Amino acid sequence: MVQQARAVETRRQIVIGAANLFSRVGYERARLNDIVGESGLTRGAIYFHFQSKDDLASIVVDEFQTVSMEAVAAIAQLDTYAMRQIAMLCREMGRLLVDDPVVRAGIRLIIELHSGEAPIPVYLAWIEAIKYFVAKGIDEGDVKPGIDPDDAAVFVTESFVGAHVLSHAVSGHDDLPARIDRLADFLVIALMPDDRVAAHPDLLGARWTPERT
Amino acid sequence: MVQQARAVETRRQIVIGAANLFSRVGYERARLNDIVGESGLTRGAIYFHFQSKDDLASIVVDEFQTVSMEAVAAIAQLDTYAMRQIAMLCREMGRLLVDDPVVRAGIRLIIELHSGEAPIPVYLAWIEAIKYFVAKGIDEGDVKPGIDPDDAAVFVTESFVGAHVLSHAVSGHDDLPARIDRLADFLVIALMPDDRVAAHPDLLGARWTPERT
Repeated sequence: MVQQARAVETRRQIVIGAANLFSRVGYERARLNDIVGESGLTRGAIYFHFQSKDDLASIVVDEFQTVSMEAVAAIAQLDTYAMRQIAMLCREMGRLLVDDPVVRAGIRLIIELHSGEAPIPVYLAWIEAIKYFVAKGIDEGDVKPGIDPDDAAVFVTESFVGAHVLSHAVSGHDDLPARIDRLADFLVIALMPDDRVAAHPDLLGARWTPERT
Repeated sequence: MVQQARAVETRRQIVIGAANLFSRVGYERARLNDIVGESGLTRGAIYFHFQSKDDLASIVVDEFQTVSMEAVAAIAQLDTYAMRQIAMLCREMGRLLVDDPVVRAGIRLIIELHSGEAPIPVYLAWIEAIKYFVAKGIDEGDVKPGIDPDDAAVFVTESFVGAHVLSHAVSGHDDLPARIDRLADFLVIALMPDDRVAAHPDLLGARWTPERT
């Protein structure tokens, strides 16, 4: 039991070390030796758990997908209107990008490792989630006439990715919280009729902070 | 004279070859040998004109900046309202990304070569340009109350960059024209009061096609 717990902990340390390195230097420049340094473990310990840099990268991407889908599920269960849920989801993904190296590395890795060969599962999952919220917002009378949920979902995802890419390029992520904060309000205002924005005083600045367990 | 013209043509061939390679594989993976293959010239000819891969990359970025600022200047001179100019500028930058390898490579290089150390001149120039159009739009009564030109300019730039990054990742740029076409309409609708969108029947789908010389 103790050994198993230690193995889980070691694996976790390696994944976080790899995520920190991938998020800083990207996939191409990351060397397995630097992951050794970053995680504070031996090369042998790493090879015991993982086959290769590829293997580590896909585990980081999988964990990123799990973490982001957990945020979607938690926010979808809230008893509030959809456009507020979209604003909350943007800000929560922004918070995760700052706080969680796995999320920061995951979003960078999927951009770097894909170049047109195949759809990206985590983006498809994001787009599906936003589509669900926009369709709910249409039922709630909060979406401008003529806006297609698919198009709106792509627009939200693109804007979020762009804010992340520019924040990384311009400030090494330091300005990300401020960027996402502005973006979340812009996005919901973009999708809603003017009178519906005015009708929801708790919309702008809406934030979901997960309970700490 | 003939020699000089030939030198200019050779230099152009090298820059386009390098841009094609950078836009496909990125800075890290691009090898000078592949640029030799791509341009159809000799290694000697390339070294006669350029010192290094770094040198070539910064020339591609400079030319990208020049081309995009030419589009801004041409659209700024049109006798039309600012929100239509913003939609035109988005679609024109999308067209350049598809048609011009220097633009495609430039936008990829500046994202890859910067990581938080310094502001990116071409983005600052874009943001200044959009800010100018938004301020003009405010004067024309076409911008929602409370929207700050700086914030709006950052939002437009982020969304554009995100559309480009996702299009590259998901389809190798094949879906870029369709993405930018949707995005241009979303962005102007986002910034404008509902009644001002309705008041401009020539707004949605607005496109500027430069004269071919």
